[in-house]
Amino acid sequence: MGLGCGAQVNGRKGNKISGAVRLTDEQRIDWLRLIRSPNIGPRTFRSLVNHFGGARTALEALPSLAQRGGARGAVQVCSREDAVRELALAHKLGIAFVAWGEPDYPARLQMIDDAPPLITMRGNAAALARPMVAIVGSRNALGAGLKFTQMIARELGDAGFVVVSGLARGIDAAAHKASLAAGTVAVLAGGQDRVYPAEHASLLEAILPAGSALSEMPLGWEPRASDFPRRNRLISGLSLGVVIIEAARRSGSLITARCALEQGREVFAVPGSPLDPRAEGTNGLIKQGATPVTETADIVSALQPIMGQHELFAREPERDVLPDDGEPADDERARIVALLGPAPLQIDDLVRLAKSSPAVVGMVLLELEIAGRLERHGGGLVSLI
Amino acid sequence: MGLGCGAQVNGRKGNKISGAVRLTDEQRIDWLRLIRSPNIGPRTFRSLVNHFGGARTALEALPSLAQRGGARGAVQVCSREDAVRELALAHKLGIAFVAWGEPDYPARLQMIDDAPPLITMRGNAAALARPMVAIVGSRNALGAGLKFTQMIARELGDAGFVVVSGLARGIDAAAHKASLAAGTVAVLAGGQDRVYPAEHASLLEAILPAGSALSEMPLGWEPRASDFPRRNRLISGLSLGVVIIEAARRSGSLITARCALEQGREVFAVPGSPLDPRAEGTNGLIKQGATPVTETADIVSALQPIMGQHELFAREPERDVLPDDGEPADDERARIVALLGPAPLQIDDLVRLAKSSPAVVGMVLLELEIAGRLERHGGGLVSLI
Repeated sequence: MGLGCGAQVNGRKGNKISGAVRLTDEQRIDWLRLIRSPNIGPRTFRSLVNHFGGARTALEALPSLAQRGGARGAVQVCSREDAVRELALAHKLGIAFVAWGEPDYPARLQMIDDAPPLITMRGNAAALARPMVAIVGSRNALGAGLKFTQMIARELGDAGFVVVSGLARGIDAAAHKASLAAGTVAVLAGGQDRVYPAEHASLLEAILPAGSALSEMPLGWEPRASDFPRRNRLISGLSLGVVIIEAARRSGSLITARCALEQGREVFAVPGSPLDPRAEGTNGLIKQGATPVTETADIVSALQPIMGQHELFAREPERDVLPDDGEPADDERARIVALLGPAPLQIDDLVRLAKSSPAVVGMVLLELEIAGRLERHGGGLVSLI
Repeated sequence: MGLGCGAQVNGRKGNKISGAVRLTDEQRIDWLRLIRSPNIGPRTFRSLVNHFGGARTALEALPSLAQRGGARGAVQVCSREDAVRELALAHKLGIAFVAWGEPDYPARLQMIDDAPPLITMRGNAAALARPMVAIVGSRNALGAGLKFTQMIARELGDAGFVVVSGLARGIDAAAHKASLAAGTVAVLAGGQDRVYPAEHASLLEAILPAGSALSEMPLGWEPRASDFPRRNRLISGLSLGVVIIEAARRSGSLITARCALEQGREVFAVPGSPLDPRAEGTNGLIKQGATPVTETADIVSALQPIMGQHELFAREPERDVLPDDGEPADDERARIVALLGPAPLQIDDLVRLAKSSPAVVGMVLLELEIAGRLERHGGGLVSLI
């Protein structure tokens, strides 16, 4: 059979990445090569595998796709050797690679649009199967905020929830520490062997017996500033809801809250004095409709009705961008590319202006993306880089 | 004409207490006697005047009503001499008596179900004609709460609002002080000559040039504990909305918030840390749907759409309890009284069980009330005392 891509999700046709089948070792190598190749994010990965019927075929197509997309120079496809080396290192460090659709892949994370095709996982896999709540907040929290965090985290653990957070200083660390026994999940912005901040390496070790550490980044990857907001979507994606405890204006915690909203997760915020800058973000969230939290019961009572309804409330999988018939002719490709520029344009408008089919436009955009020439903005907007 | 009772509110028939006509001196004496008589609250006052066509006739009927209601001993109707004495003292002290329906009666207060038939008023009457916002909160507020109160009160004054409060220590005093120049209204729980707390007498004097002091209680009345919650309905009743700044659980400020809700006023609450007991009440209000306030714009932007819509959103005046034909026969009265006991009973059930008309039941209840034998609970429940 193909690379785990023959089965169907919920019986839907055309959704070729699918559930509850373990990859073979060879398939895992192909998946890893594809997601580690330049300009391939989770969404592009899915489009490619769906279009080409598997990661292997997609890998083989990458050079010609990049060329048709106008790549400057040859595309640096991740080599088989590099992938094998990363898998071997992971094995040595006790780190598992879990693929989208495999039984150990966290159920709710699987539902987000840009779920990572592969995650690395250390610790107790059972923790990832239980209902999760994220707790995030400011790194420079003071005593009161830390104390409140500990109370909420401990009580959520007692209520059967796994606490998810980002291993940062301040609120994150307090949330993990208070739920070590009950099980807690740390989502890393870098590779599993590049824990940030370094002083939390021993905290991470303490997490692993009952809990887990999770990352989508390659082993050896030092986290950069831009990796943290990207990581935040995994924190919310894993969880039924996100509790924001203390957040200044424009803080990373508010990015997690926005991810949670986009993913249809509950957003909880702890109120604070209008004179306390650390409460500016959380009070703002409450004004925008977040559920105010002053005790654990506020969270539990809001989540209990939606627990166990993963399937019921699962999003419709995104319509595939690329039906199998989307193969653009050269002049059509040129016409589409000519319409694009540095100013973001709606894909729908592009289809209309180019007088092409959505499938053909989707394929041309994919080629440009793989060639490193396309930037995707929110709301279906694209521009040339 | 009768005691200001010939005109009609909004053209509705049967609503005999009505608007925009000044009482004669004699009428004012009668109104004052009726509302100062025992067991006559604002609702009973209205029922009596509507039923009997005026305060004078109602006063004359009181003894027989009380007797039919089973009063123990003769009813102590307020004497003409006492009323004249209170009016003369008020005049001497520069205090005006303003009756429901007179031009100086505050427009929004007039709309509440239990608006006082007469209020005493000192200071600048113009303040009572402007849009008002109440600010209330805990008496033991600390620096941060007081500072925030001053900011909100000053900015509301700048935005053209008159700040209403209760002259208490803490938040109330801070709100008044910050809006002395813009105009602020103090609603007293006792008589105008019994300012509580006594140390705020000079604050009250400072309020009067631009603002006003208002009370429904008799001159000479020392406020008791039960007068404060009763007074709170006037604070909310005068206002477009009520801002609660710091309120512990079961505090008087929460009573004001409940009054505001019942009267259809906006409720605003300032969030605070879950670990701060002074924020327990306000956080609770926000959980119940109160608008969170961290800056004055939160209040102004919520109120601006409803300003100047007094008439549009005026409640339907309550259906008169007592049409003119409600005159119970002795056996019917006995049957109704026999159904009542110490356990609260719905008036609707009473009508059904007694096989009487609502008008007759209403009259019997009024007699019992005047006789001091009836207690009215919320939600149309009554019981014998």
